[in-house]
Amino acid sequence: MENQVIRERLSALRTQMKSAGIDYYMIPSGDFHNSEYAAEYFHTRAWFSGFTGSSGTLVLSQNWAGLWTDGRYFIQAERQLEGTGIDLFRMREKDVPTIKAYLAEHMSERQVLGFDGRVVSTQFGEELKEALSRKEIKLRYDQDLAGKVWTDRPALPCHPIYVLDDALCGKSFAEKLSDIRKVMAESKARAHLLCKLDDIAWLTNLRGNDVECNPVFLSYLFITEKNCYLFVQFDELTDEVRHYAQESGITLVEYSRILSWIDEFSFDGATLVDKNNINYAVYRTLKASAQENSAGVREDRNPTELMKAVKNETELKNIREVYLKDSAALTRFICWMKTNAGKEDMDEYGVQKRLDGMRAALPGFIELSFTTISAYGPNAAMMHYSASPETSAPIRAEGFYLVDSGGTYYGGTTDVTRTIAMGPLTQEQKKDYTLTAIAMLHLADTVFIKGCTGRNVDIMAREPMWRNHMDYKCGTGHGIGYMLNVHEGPHNISYHKAETAAQAARETALMPGMIVSDEPGVYKAGQYGIRIENILEVMEDIETADGIFYKFGHLTYVPLDPDAMDVTWMTPSDIEAYNAYQSEVCKRLTPLMQNDEERAWLASQTRAL
Amino acid sequence: MENQVIRERLSALRTQMKSAGIDYYMIPSGDFHNSEYAAEYFHTRAWFSGFTGSSGTLVLSQNWAGLWTDGRYFIQAERQLEGTGIDLFRMREKDVPTIKAYLAEHMSERQVLGFDGRVVSTQFGEELKEALSRKEIKLRYDQDLAGKVWTDRPALPCHPIYVLDDALCGKSFAEKLSDIRKVMAESKARAHLLCKLDDIAWLTNLRGNDVECNPVFLSYLFITEKNCYLFVQFDELTDEVRHYAQESGITLVEYSRILSWIDEFSFDGATLVDKNNINYAVYRTLKASAQENSAGVREDRNPTELMKAVKNETELKNIREVYLKDSAALTRFICWMKTNAGKEDMDEYGVQKRLDGMRAALPGFIELSFTTISAYGPNAAMMHYSASPETSAPIRAEGFYLVDSGGTYYGGTTDVTRTIAMGPLTQEQKKDYTLTAIAMLHLADTVFIKGCTGRNVDIMAREPMWRNHMDYKCGTGHGIGYMLNVHEGPHNISYHKAETAAQAARETALMPGMIVSDEPGVYKAGQYGIRIENILEVMEDIETADGIFYKFGHLTYVPLDPDAMDVTWMTPSDIEAYNAYQSEVCKRLTPLMQNDEERAWLASQTRAL
Repeated sequence: MENQVIRERLSALRTQMKSAGIDYYMIPSGDFHNSEYAAEYFHTRAWFSGFTGSSGTLVLSQNWAGLWTDGRYFIQAERQLEGTGIDLFRMREKDVPTIKAYLAEHMSERQVLGFDGRVVSTQFGEELKEALSRKEIKLRYDQDLAGKVWTDRPALPCHPIYVLDDALCGKSFAEKLSDIRKVMAESKARAHLLCKLDDIAWLTNLRGNDVECNPVFLSYLFITEKNCYLFVQFDELTDEVRHYAQESGITLVEYSRILSWIDEFSFDGATLVDKNNINYAVYRTLKASAQENSAGVREDRNPTELMKAVKNETELKNIREVYLKDSAALTRFICWMKTNAGKEDMDEYGVQKRLDGMRAALPGFIELSFTTISAYGPNAAMMHYSASPETSAPIRAEGFYLVDSGGTYYGGTTDVTRTIAMGPLTQEQKKDYTLTAIAMLHLADTVFIKGCTGRNVDIMAREPMWRNHMDYKCGTGHGIGYMLNVHEGPHNISYHKAETAAQAARETALMPGMIVSDEPGVYKAGQYGIRIENILEVMEDIETADGIFYKFGHLTYVPLDPDAMDVTWMTPSDIEAYNAYQSEVCKRLTPLMQNDEERAWLASQTRAL
Repeated sequence: MENQVIRERLSALRTQMKSAGIDYYMIPSGDFHNSEYAAEYFHTRAWFSGFTGSSGTLVLSQNWAGLWTDGRYFIQAERQLEGTGIDLFRMREKDVPTIKAYLAEHMSERQVLGFDGRVVSTQFGEELKEALSRKEIKLRYDQDLAGKVWTDRPALPCHPIYVLDDALCGKSFAEKLSDIRKVMAESKARAHLLCKLDDIAWLTNLRGNDVECNPVFLSYLFITEKNCYLFVQFDELTDEVRHYAQESGITLVEYSRILSWIDEFSFDGATLVDKNNINYAVYRTLKASAQENSAGVREDRNPTELMKAVKNETELKNIREVYLKDSAALTRFICWMKTNAGKEDMDEYGVQKRLDGMRAALPGFIELSFTTISAYGPNAAMMHYSASPETSAPIRAEGFYLVDSGGTYYGGTTDVTRTIAMGPLTQEQKKDYTLTAIAMLHLADTVFIKGCTGRNVDIMAREPMWRNHMDYKCGTGHGIGYMLNVHEGPHNISYHKAETAAQAARETALMPGMIVSDEPGVYKAGQYGIRIENILEVMEDIETADGIFYKFGHLTYVPLDPDAMDVTWMTPSDIEAYNAYQSEVCKRLTPLMQNDEERAWLASQTRAL
């Protein structure tokens, strides 16, 4: 059956294309800042194609349309594209061309490719330009044709911005700005354009609510040696923020003016910009405008990126406190789950709401740091499973329940995963849980020398798995923001070799003050999933004649599940590490339990093996 | 006091410079192929400066001369340069300019820098060119002025080339050549120029004797789709080699003709060349000649490099046998050392000759794979110590003696290090030895997933050290050739992040068939040095739903020293790994011991802890 709604939308878009002189038009998935979650305003590709997956790109000409998406979404896309006349391109499958290759082959000489360059990464834009240059194809990156057709499009997210106390941030905006200007001076840049939302929020000590679960606000920041221009939606400004801006020497400019403002700005020297964190429209506009002023663009990493990743003493102190209260909440939830397994009716969505509520009741709670993953049995084998009231599976008194959750509080953003034995387990389940716990503790106990990156230490978590010929198909760890995004670079923990020189150059050494997740797992499709995630802080250990040594410290203190441990798979050192962690959990959490039952349960749950 | 000899040599060189119109002249240390050891013919810098260290570059103008060397040689260079008028530039010290920076500052516009481009790496040549381009300085890279002054210069090394049986190599030259031509076709290259001596020897199944301890011969190889030109000194050719060349379709060209031959060659397509393995003179000549023919140069890694590193089944079978007999010889030497400690007079050089003699007596022995490091007490703290009859230290019945040695045999090249307790040890010495042994075994026992490189696994050796806040300042492991160089790329084991994009791109995954050293150590300046080095082969382990897993197998079977072990520093798993290795050593070596005393000693030396 034909999907008339989609066909009509595409037809209207083709009319716009014709009148704009555009032969091919492309609609990707992201927002202007490559945020992890794009607001409804940016769901253009879903509106025009019917495909609602989080990742995919629609491309169309007058007589053809295609949608590219990856393996996670092949089945969903097939179903949702039915009757739309849109061809599905299964990315990375054999003989399936990339968008670039497809356009290079099918577009004719001197045709025009249009797109909204604000939602395209600079890297992809440049690759397209390069690939299509032989046919002298013109890129029109200033075209939001979709917006003209999508008349009932939701508004851009627009929520009040708020100011964080310097005392909470440990460093004032003025101090941070001065650090940035030092880096600018060192790299002989007269200006710096920042497009990364969490970097802007961190630098300005401002927060907002424009991206789901990320306390950021839509913005750009342009810094010169003397001035600082913050591009925001004026509707987001409170008196407090206007006052703060004035006091801080921030000039406020309406968010939508970014391109024309750059175009008109008189550059008097190089602008420092991170090509990996700027959209193609802004990049091209900046390049062109700078060139007109005979100024250059200095491409390097955002200095904010590393400054933000290395938490200061105030941030660390607050983070440690926040993780403890968050750990206590999750522990009390686990106590309730295990105590009531088989006694109360439980389902994924119901218990998820229960846990979310416990977090929301904690002092200083702002929002969840991501949608809680509450997954029972085979659902937990899907790394990004999300329960809904409609599909929520009942939780029985057997097997594993996995919960991956976190919150943003005044004082930090948390992230933690525990897998819980709800009742009897198989031998295989116990083995897999035990290896996961060993892997997590093994990495956490690593001592390493200054200069090591996540690529060096990743094997400390994986080797206990590899030794048993098992592996998990994701990274071991990611950085985490301070009252900011739960996924934050530039460091991570992964063994994979960079695929490009640019990626290799971004590999970042682990430094004291960084925080990073440690989350090995076992995923058995159709059966069960296990993940244990602690957040670690990188700490100084000691300096000797041989070098400067670092270690990890736990931020997360939530019991491991002794019911799922099998000492058969543990060496004496493994047992020692397990007992030490459990004992520390007991010591730190006992004062935060709310009654004797919880305290007794905690003592039993953290007993030595 | 003035060094008249050196001053006169420099003066003669300056005369040559003047008549050639050269303002600055540069003399580095290497040979034409960046070999690990340069023959006497190439000791030009030493002859002109008096400085005999293995690494250093002399630069001079009419009224100034400077010598750049690194930290290993500051003291030696100071002494040797005395009275020569040559300034010493201590590389990497604060405020000491690099050669490039010095020349960029001191040379005047449009001056001429001369050097013999055959002894300069392409990378360094290009860096100089770039750095000096602003002043329009001309690089004359075809100038061996030094040769004109050094009248009694030793001849180029020139030793007979010999042919290896295909049966010994596991693959004929024809088969290997066909593999290379496949890679050429894939990368759309019509020709391939190979300048790396061990790659040429491996590919042609020929060996020679032109570089100390490396069974290679001075040569270049130029491969087209139909032809194959081998540039060698005709004086090195035996009838056997001429016959082999004819049968194999190899056209022999005199070695010295390489530059003029390339210059005259009619290129009809791109030439594949590895910029990291070609000297600057050849590179520039190739670029210019190819350009004249409107052909290009395709820069990529030598395909031989990886083919050579992954040993074939025949090579592996032979290597395993060779390592066993080499292990037995070293073990018998250790037996003699420990049995006679305090009873016989021993000194470093004397026992070194004894061990070298034992190796030379083994069937199939060709030569030592490097000069044996025979070091007692504090001498062993110097990683590259070399004993001589004059400086040889006596070996007493206490502390540690370190021996790092190896041979090239028909069937493989070996490398092994053992540190031996000659008598009583301190607690600290035992701790350090134990940690070194654990580190070596820990890496050897690692299971890892396909795709891992040496950067991923290095921590398996180092973490037992790091945990005790110790580190060794060198890589953990290097590849080893097959009847070839004892140091061979492209893989290695090291935790360091690449400094350049080119280096990062060369990082190579460990693959079954590769062999690699595993040599952690403890070096305490002025006290003692400990290194334990086994050679490991990368082996397939097993493929599961989670991936393809690899493991290491030992090639080296030489006892660890139980007299130096302290179980205080060992976990039960460490003890298990130690006992398993020692028991395997005993099992494999017992049949190779030559009398009951040796067998009894071996049984005792490999006893379980």
